[in-house]
Amino acid sequence: MADAAIKSLDETLEKYIPAQELAEVNRILYGRRPKPLDVPVAALRLAEVGGFELRAFTIGAAPEQLRPPRLVRVGLMQNRIVEPTTAPVAQQVSALHKRLASMVETAALCGVNIVCFQEAWTMPFAFCTRERLPWTEFAESAEDGPTTLFCQERDEVHRDTIWNTAVVISNSGAVLGKTRKNHIPRVGDFNESTYYMEGNTGHRVFQTQFGRIAINICYGRHHPLNWLMYAENGAEIVFNPSATIGGLSEPLWAIEARNAAIANHYFTCAINRVGTECFPNAFTSGDGKEAHCEFGHFYGSSYVAAPDGSRTPGLGRMNDGLLIAELDLNLNRQVSDHWGFRMTGRYEMYAEELARSVKHDFKPDIHK
Amino acid sequence: MADAAIKSLDETLEKYIPAQELAEVNRILYGRRPKPLDVPVAALRLAEVGGFELRAFTIGAAPEQLRPPRLVRVGLMQNRIVEPTTAPVAQQVSALHKRLASMVETAALCGVNIVCFQEAWTMPFAFCTRERLPWTEFAESAEDGPTTLFCQERDEVHRDTIWNTAVVISNSGAVLGKTRKNHIPRVGDFNESTYYMEGNTGHRVFQTQFGRIAINICYGRHHPLNWLMYAENGAEIVFNPSATIGGLSEPLWAIEARNAAIANHYFTCAINRVGTECFPNAFTSGDGKEAHCEFGHFYGSSYVAAPDGSRTPGLGRMNDGLLIAELDLNLNRQVSDHWGFRMTGRYEMYAEELARSVKHDFKPDIHK
Repeated sequence: MADAAIKSLDETLEKYIPAQELAEVNRILYGRRPKPLDVPVAALRLAEVGGFELRAFTIGAAPEQLRPPRLVRVGLMQNRIVEPTTAPVAQQVSALHKRLASMVETAALCGVNIVCFQEAWTMPFAFCTRERLPWTEFAESAEDGPTTLFCQERDEVHRDTIWNTAVVISNSGAVLGKTRKNHIPRVGDFNESTYYMEGNTGHRVFQTQFGRIAINICYGRHHPLNWLMYAENGAEIVFNPSATIGGLSEPLWAIEARNAAIANHYFTCAINRVGTECFPNAFTSGDGKEAHCEFGHFYGSSYVAAPDGSRTPGLGRMNDGLLIAELDLNLNRQVSDHWGFRMTGRYEMYAEELARSVKHDFKPDIHK
Repeated sequence: MADAAIKSLDETLEKYIPAQELAEVNRILYGRRPKPLDVPVAALRLAEVGGFELRAFTIGAAPEQLRPPRLVRVGLMQNRIVEPTTAPVAQQVSALHKRLASMVETAALCGVNIVCFQEAWTMPFAFCTRERLPWTEFAESAEDGPTTLFCQERDEVHRDTIWNTAVVISNSGAVLGKTRKNHIPRVGDFNESTYYMEGNTGHRVFQTQFGRIAINICYGRHHPLNWLMYAENGAEIVFNPSATIGGLSEPLWAIEARNAAIANHYFTCAINRVGTECFPNAFTSGDGKEAHCEFGHFYGSSYVAAPDGSRTPGLGRMNDGLLIAELDLNLNRQVSDHWGFRMTGRYEMYAEELARSVKHDFKPDIHK
């Protein structure tokens, strides 16, 4: 298939473009290049045995007089499902637990402080099927479900409501809190409101030992105001666990999380599922085509974007992978002090304009 | 200099990457490729004689039952200054008038309906000098200045206030109105508030015979809310006339206007000045380096981005150029109907959240 032809955009550029011009191509496309980060041999071996890509980079900041560097290592994980979608639910979940455990172990060996998994990582991304069962059985309680970290949640306090939720667990094992998907797609196969509605947890930011983080789940990346509000609440790193396929969104992928990093003076971590998932019952996609059992190829390509507009290379389009990035969070304020978008942003004016424009009797300012 | 080494990113990719892989690289980087648009031989000849690049593309939409295609041709112009910055003001302006006239004539031959010039096109981008004279003499009245179309305006009604303004002229020659730069940089050499302050004309949209257009001047492209409000007011094409140099912003250039097209379901036209401008008096740049007479290389690279995330190739980084794009404005609503970001955008919620977050007693939602 067309969207599976290239394993990695960056590898293709490296393969053909001579070194000197490649440096310029990379500068124009990606900004200053993050430096490679050394990792222990044992981690490389685990990745090799586990059959997943391992890449590591460091994005530094200038030295300051009053603050030491604020280094944090993040680990982004992208992975295929392990068991077929027809396997018993518990078996699918536990195979994914085991798979991710080996990747987390590798991340730990590399000194990673914060890991983030892809969206709905304990299950196939079955929302294209529009079937209830067995998919809703994957939804676990945030309080006492078998997955300590999970992405879809059954809210038992509120009459078993299902949400698309990320739970933040501190390095001590304590649950710091949860945050729900704010924007729910109704596009192509994915009217996810068949399964869960817009989140009601706002734009929480979690203070960890390693910095203030937030989680903007999947479709929220298309909404600049969503990214903005995490910044307003003080986020220094925003993770964007996603599940999106080549035919739908690939040319948007490198743009949106990176634009958010630029516009909001913080780091963003864009994580996409990888692989093709086959479902037992054929389904139609509202496009006049025949019923089919595969939704499409999730193209991976996870990356980290920095507030200065630079970014890491992406993980591959076809394979499981762990991307490690050491970030100096001092860069956020340095870029903010340089560009000053918060200062020049005129947010008071926009609060007023937006309040007007959402009213029923809003008259657009059109000059004829 | 490093940022002048490549004439055009797209040309470099085309030069080295084999055709089949290039198609995939282009798809991932740019989305579906716009088709080349034929132009008259006479136009090509004018461009050759005039020594400027001429490229033309068409970005189509699907046929609809109830609406015919809404085709509009836009022309983006990027150009160096013609006379040295030491020439008399009137001579500099009239040389630029003459230069742009030949480019407009070429555009007319190609059936262009709307042209847009670069920011402050009647003058060198002298704001790095921080000198009053002779630069403020380039500011003209919007009512009766020698430049019918102009970018910097002297507001005589309001005690000679200077603004950074774009004037919109209809195809009949009538002034449709003017719109001012909403966000003023205070970055590096450019504290433009030495010359003019934040605009007070809001986010006007102009209804032309060829669609509803708006002009987001230069630094406004860093501000997602600014792009959003033009959409709220109904813009179908937003022009972004700019002046920005390689060392400052080049890795951001391809991201921001394109993200705006995606997020707001409209077309964006990003236009950047080109060339290096030398000023008579050396100036410092607040970076500890020696005083110098050149600010840096304006890298051109003007392009058009479509609401589906696709974009045209860019004009060159070193040369004057005219980029023509035929756009089917029906694409905006088609993409909106497909992705529906306005529908899933929850703007009422953001109007409230933003109103809260700008208050002095705002408490960020941080969970510890």
